Amino acid sequence: MEREASELFEEFKELTASEFFRRNKQMLGFSGKIRSLTIVFHELITNSFDAAEEAGILPEISIDLKRVDKDHYILKHRDNGPGIPEDYLTRVYCTMFAGSKFRNIQSRGQQGLGCSGCVLLSQMTTGKPAKVISGYRDGNQIKGVEMTFKMDVKQNKGLILERKEVDLDSTGVSIELQFKDVSYSLSEQGAYEYIRRTMIANPHAKITFRDPTGHKYIFDRSSSEIPPLPKEVLPHPKGVTADDLIFMAKHTDKRRFRSLLTSSLSRMSNKRVTEIEEATGIDLNKRPKDMKWEEAERIVDLFGQMDFMAPPTAGLIPIGKEQIEKGIREILNPEFVAVTTRKPKTYKGGVSFIVEAGIAYGGSSGRVVGEQKKAEIMRFANRVPLTFDQGSCAITEALKSIDWKRYGIRDMENAPITVFVNIISTNVPYLSTGKQSVAPEAEILHEIRQATMKIARSLQKYINAKKAAKEEEMRSKVFEAYVPVVLKEAAILAERDVPEYGDVLAKVTRKPKILGDVNNE
Amino acid sequence: MEREASELFEEFKELTASEFFRRNKQMLGFSGKIRSLTIVFHELITNSFDAAEEAGILPEISIDLKRVDKDHYILKHRDNGPGIPEDYLTRVYCTMFAGSKFRNIQSRGQQGLGCSGCVLLSQMTTGKPAKVISGYRDGNQIKGVEMTFKMDVKQNKGLILERKEVDLDSTGVSIELQFKDVSYSLSEQGAYEYIRRTMIANPHAKITFRDPTGHKYIFDRSSSEIPPLPKEVLPHPKGVTADDLIFMAKHTDKRRFRSLLTSSLSRMSNKRVTEIEEATGIDLNKRPKDMKWEEAERIVDLFGQMDFMAPPTAGLIPIGKEQIEKGIREILNPEFVAVTTRKPKTYKGGVSFIVEAGIAYGGSSGRVVGEQKKAEIMRFANRVPLTFDQGSCAITEALKSIDWKRYGIRDMENAPITVFVNIISTNVPYLSTGKQSVAPEAEILHEIRQATMKIARSLQKYINAKKAAKEEEMRSKVFEAYVPVVLKEAAILAERDVPEYGDVLAKVTRKPKILGDVNNE
Repeated sequence: MEREASELFEEFKELTASEFFRRNKQMLGFSGKIRSLTIVFHELITNSFDAAEEAGILPEISIDLKRVDKDHYILKHRDNGPGIPEDYLTRVYCTMFAGSKFRNIQSRGQQGLGCSGCVLLSQMTTGKPAKVISGYRDGNQIKGVEMTFKMDVKQNKGLILERKEVDLDSTGVSIELQFKDVSYSLSEQGAYEYIRRTMIANPHAKITFRDPTGHKYIFDRSSSEIPPLPKEVLPHPKGVTADDLIFMAKHTDKRRFRSLLTSSLSRMSNKRVTEIEEATGIDLNKRPKDMKWEEAERIVDLFGQMDFMAPPTAGLIPIGKEQIEKGIREILNPEFVAVTTRKPKTYKGGVSFIVEAGIAYGGSSGRVVGEQKKAEIMRFANRVPLTFDQGSCAITEALKSIDWKRYGIRDMENAPITVFVNIISTNVPYLSTGKQSVAPEAEILHEIRQATMKIARSLQKYINAKKAAKEEEMRSKVFEAYVPVVLKEAAILAERDVPEYGDVLAKVTRKPKILGDVNNE
Repeated sequence: MEREASELFEEFKELTASEFFRRNKQMLGFSGKIRSLTIVFHELITNSFDAAEEAGILPEISIDLKRVDKDHYILKHRDNGPGIPEDYLTRVYCTMFAGSKFRNIQSRGQQGLGCSGCVLLSQMTTGKPAKVISGYRDGNQIKGVEMTFKMDVKQNKGLILERKEVDLDSTGVSIELQFKDVSYSLSEQGAYEYIRRTMIANPHAKITFRDPTGHKYIFDRSSSEIPPLPKEVLPHPKGVTADDLIFMAKHTDKRRFRSLLTSSLSRMSNKRVTEIEEATGIDLNKRPKDMKWEEAERIVDLFGQMDFMAPPTAGLIPIGKEQIEKGIREILNPEFVAVTTRKPKTYKGGVSFIVEAGIAYGGSSGRVVGEQKKAEIMRFANRVPLTFDQGSCAITEALKSIDWKRYGIRDMENAPITVFVNIISTNVPYLSTGKQSVAPEAEILHEIRQATMKIARSLQKYINAKKAAKEEEMRSKVFEAYVPVVLKEAAILAERDVPEYGDVLAKVTRKPKILGDVNNE
């Protein structure tokens, strides 16, 4: 029996983003007990860092995780950032696809999903409201507000239950959330390791963490430099598509396409616009809304052929060699470390990115598996540890493609080595909503390989020098052991005193002179 | 210099779902040229199948893919489904998170993203509008409408450019879309292979496909049974959370919590409700809105301890042994095939699912790599081929965990074998928005293993029998060769005629009698 279309469409409806993700929470990374809790830490920590740095404050976070019952926790997370103005509080925590980071700027967050995802998970597993205290500067005073609220999923909005003003003497946000069906773990994918890795890439931050056993960890900063604030940069001509130009043209307030181009793209002077006009024959004095798709396509094609200066690098703030080294030394205490920060490059023609890599050897480098040490990869994007989906990530792919034997590491798998890779970009090409792996763009793979091979060569030199020093040491020991004996026996044979041999011994052992003291034996 | 929160929040804004996915198209599966085109095929085909089957029509699709230029294609996709009423046309194709499948029903689509994702990709890469012709039954007549439209990304809505009524004599939807930056490929992840696999799991469908070279492939149906229509089933008590109960209570029109329970959950009789009332001491005659979280939690805890019948199986329609075998024989033409459909099980306590598995040996089974055959895994969920993210999928994990040597397959990797696994569920736990891999829930892994091991045993028997038959054949050949010679020589020695030995030979070779014809040699 056939059914009519109208009947089939009776059930047609639209969901809000919150409703959608309530049905698909695994798409926010919330799958599995350990992973779910790690993702919560990730979302709250990255938001606090972004906010503090943007406000020019050295980030300091304190986290208190209490176990109420098996798989049931209360999480208190407090930061010293600029706070959230009252009008924005529930929008930040209860509206999905809302945020201040939808710009061409390097930031840890990009999607406006993180904080509201945590509130959603809390509400879905415990039914408890979120409790937030926000202190923010308003002119000369600090305003403080305390609120409890729930997320109204059908509206994708907050539902305020209580609200009162509070006196605070500093800015920042505290949030208290309860979770069930999550689990705290010391494993590689657990919340503790997440904090530890975060500290390597953020040596300017301080995190105090009280774990469910009551133990208090203080991860102090090893640097007190606030990273320079990344600037929002205009998109580079080689990074825009025809669709981008048409989208800009549709939503601009400029009156000429010419001025839209110079004001919306980097490296785009009046001179370049005139070149484009001459090469394409398109009148760029027309109104933006009159720009046709075919014309936009011709302009983008021309961009592809033109030479432009690389994107402005003010938009990209790498951690920096010195800072990464501080972070690695603080956390891994290795016997050797090498770090490199590459020059900015672009992928897809115009999205700029920087690759930084570090390699640590010995000490606490590598991960411990049973009694053994295994090599460890620590992946980061914009200073944020990537904990899951390792297999599909550009970083894993690039590192696996390196022939480690060429760098004197015969058994990479079982070496006490930690390789650190951080990708900095205004637009990291994540493979999934959970932001846990980076798309293997050819240019990104290339940069990771180059960076890693460079520091692998330094490690090779260190390992070779260590080996040579060990051999030298052995050789010296042989001379030190035998020269005195030979001299003594020769003296007896010759019926003479043992001569002064310190100079000779020092020469062959290449060590400071040792006084011959054979006679005193 | 510190900055104030209010300044930082100047850039705060909300995105629509379309805006969000325009910025993150890789989250819809659109990454890479080959993958992007395969995902388009996937979305359009699954939508056509779902619609046709829901309307009780045997699905028939024709696809025409024209190459305009390198990486630039025009795709025409036409189905014979019930059509889309005019009022819903742009909502289906231009509104994200909109659809008719947000129910507890087995369907290929679940998310309301697919079709609108294709329109978005087309628009983003070519700027061209979509052109749709829809024919749908309205009472006794067929209405026909032709529309071209674009997606207004800022509004998450359609923008109609042209519209006219057309005369049609059958129902169905044709859509014409243009794409750039996509690529047609014959590889395992390409569009052609996607269609081939679709046909294995959907032997009742017919697909005509004209490829960019102009070659027309007709994949005819090997079965003309429309799969029974899956029924929407009420959620099983073991599958609901406290959050679900509270959500239902908030949005119900029932006046008593008791009647909400019996009308919203399966296996929930008045008797069971009374049991719950007695065990928890909660008054279930209260209004749904008065249900507290703690009470809902206690009820859900109790659900966990109670025995319920398994979820109604009317909601799950497996492909079925016979149909899968038809599909496999039609497409792979193997020398051996074994298929099994397991009984419905539940994961997470109450979401029911069925695992079906098939194994094909010889013929076109396995994938060809160079000159060699390699084993091949074909993953499906609700009859839809899963083409990407193989590594993280429950199906891959389960199959890898099987010790194939125990089933007489010494080198599984290099065997001419195709393993087919299909997971049927009202709620397949996909790992990502791209719906390409299934979460490794313990119960799902178990079922895949059990199903596969069962058919692996059949394959083992077949391989053993084949080996035994071969040995028997060899043995018979030995008798056939030597018995006549021995008899002849013996007869000569005994100076007698060669006796009739057909009966004896037939007995030892276990073959029909062969007349001794030695004398005629």
